[in-house]
Amino acid sequence: MTPTITAFERSPDGGKGLARDMRVRWALEEVGQPYDVRLVSFSEMKEPAHLALHPFGQIPTYEEGDLALFESGAIVLHIAERHAGLLPDDANARARAITWMFAALTTMEPPIVDREVAKLLEGDETWYEQRLPVLEERVRDRMGQLSRRLGDADWLDGEFSAADLLMVSVLLRLKRSGMLGQYTNLSAYVARGEARPAYKRAFDAQLAVFTAAFTGR
Amino acid sequence: MTPTITAFERSPDGGKGLARDMRVRWALEEVGQPYDVRLVSFSEMKEPAHLALHPFGQIPTYEEGDLALFESGAIVLHIAERHAGLLPDDANARARAITWMFAALTTMEPPIVDREVAKLLEGDETWYEQRLPVLEERVRDRMGQLSRRLGDADWLDGEFSAADLLMVSVLLRLKRSGMLGQYTNLSAYVARGEARPAYKRAFDAQLAVFTAAFTGR
Repeated sequence: MTPTITAFERSPDGGKGLARDMRVRWALEEVGQPYDVRLVSFSEMKEPAHLALHPFGQIPTYEEGDLALFESGAIVLHIAERHAGLLPDDANARARAITWMFAALTTMEPPIVDREVAKLLEGDETWYEQRLPVLEERVRDRMGQLSRRLGDADWLDGEFSAADLLMVSVLLRLKRSGMLGQYTNLSAYVARGEARPAYKRAFDAQLAVFTAAFTGR
Repeated sequence: MTPTITAFERSPDGGKGLARDMRVRWALEEVGQPYDVRLVSFSEMKEPAHLALHPFGQIPTYEEGDLALFESGAIVLHIAERHAGLLPDDANARARAITWMFAALTTMEPPIVDREVAKLLEGDETWYEQRLPVLEERVRDRMGQLSRRLGDADWLDGEFSAADLLMVSVLLRLKRSGMLGQYTNLSAYVARGEARPAYKRAFDAQLAVFTAAFTGR
């Protein structure tokens, strides 16, 4: 059965692959599972039909027969559990990979998002110049810890897994900030993720949506 | 094999059960799995021995034979996967419960933590009075959405699960703010969680650690 995911009709990131449907697309491409996409506008996301699928009115959602899921982390885990290629077979290695999936979303991503939100919503406030260094320090603390743990390994724990997929996706949010470039091994790690054929297919697919929205196709 | 978790030697919450070891203790109590606790001080958490277990220098960690995990969400999921009682047997219901686990930690908790952090670190800043309503509005948006979805159900999706364990734990952070009391069904939901015998056993265990630290026992 072909699953259907939702994505922004017009992604606020301008097709840079930072919206959270990208993580799900990437996972589906890694395991070779074709999928359908239903695009939703910002107003549709707040309507009852979409809220029935996603109580917080966001994207992505994932529908597969009777099953409806939300939360990109949970969807990626669901895909990884039902297909080979995104989680190790060994039970302990699998538990460690899931640990890193949570680490990406609950330890690394929140300070990165906080910095973005402050820039977006408080960039013109008088206190912004004072808060920014504090917010960046929190991001750098996490990046330093992650950089030390990764060392010169290719991936977080053995082979590429759903953990790397999520961690690379989270770190990509920092690409334009200049902060990623300060950690050579993390930059190389992100580049390894972006070089994967499945990443490229997913990226092209989300970019095509954005481009189509602006050419009226 | 009895697992060992780590917890704060002196929890900054003063034994109110808000530190993240509480979630793991609660899960272990729900499934009836005895466990050992190793207490760590704030300085020990930043030392190489602890960083080898937890690259971000936090608690809790979880050790079981050769397996070492961190991230409370991942640990609770690990416990729920290996024991009966915290996840439904039906595959779709199980995937939905995992979705709500991620929702608790990645959608609900970050704005709640942001409000706490601002209060703690920026409470004396000139801009705090201006930022606080914005931060509280973000929390209320999420609470309103969660409240509408929960409706008059006892738990998020059928029987009590690891999803409720995490969601109740996250909402408990708001108890002293007065915000929780504004949502009758969410208050009752949290109270149902706190009334569970396993919650009480876990709460008493973490409180005993805090009390012992201050009586020199």
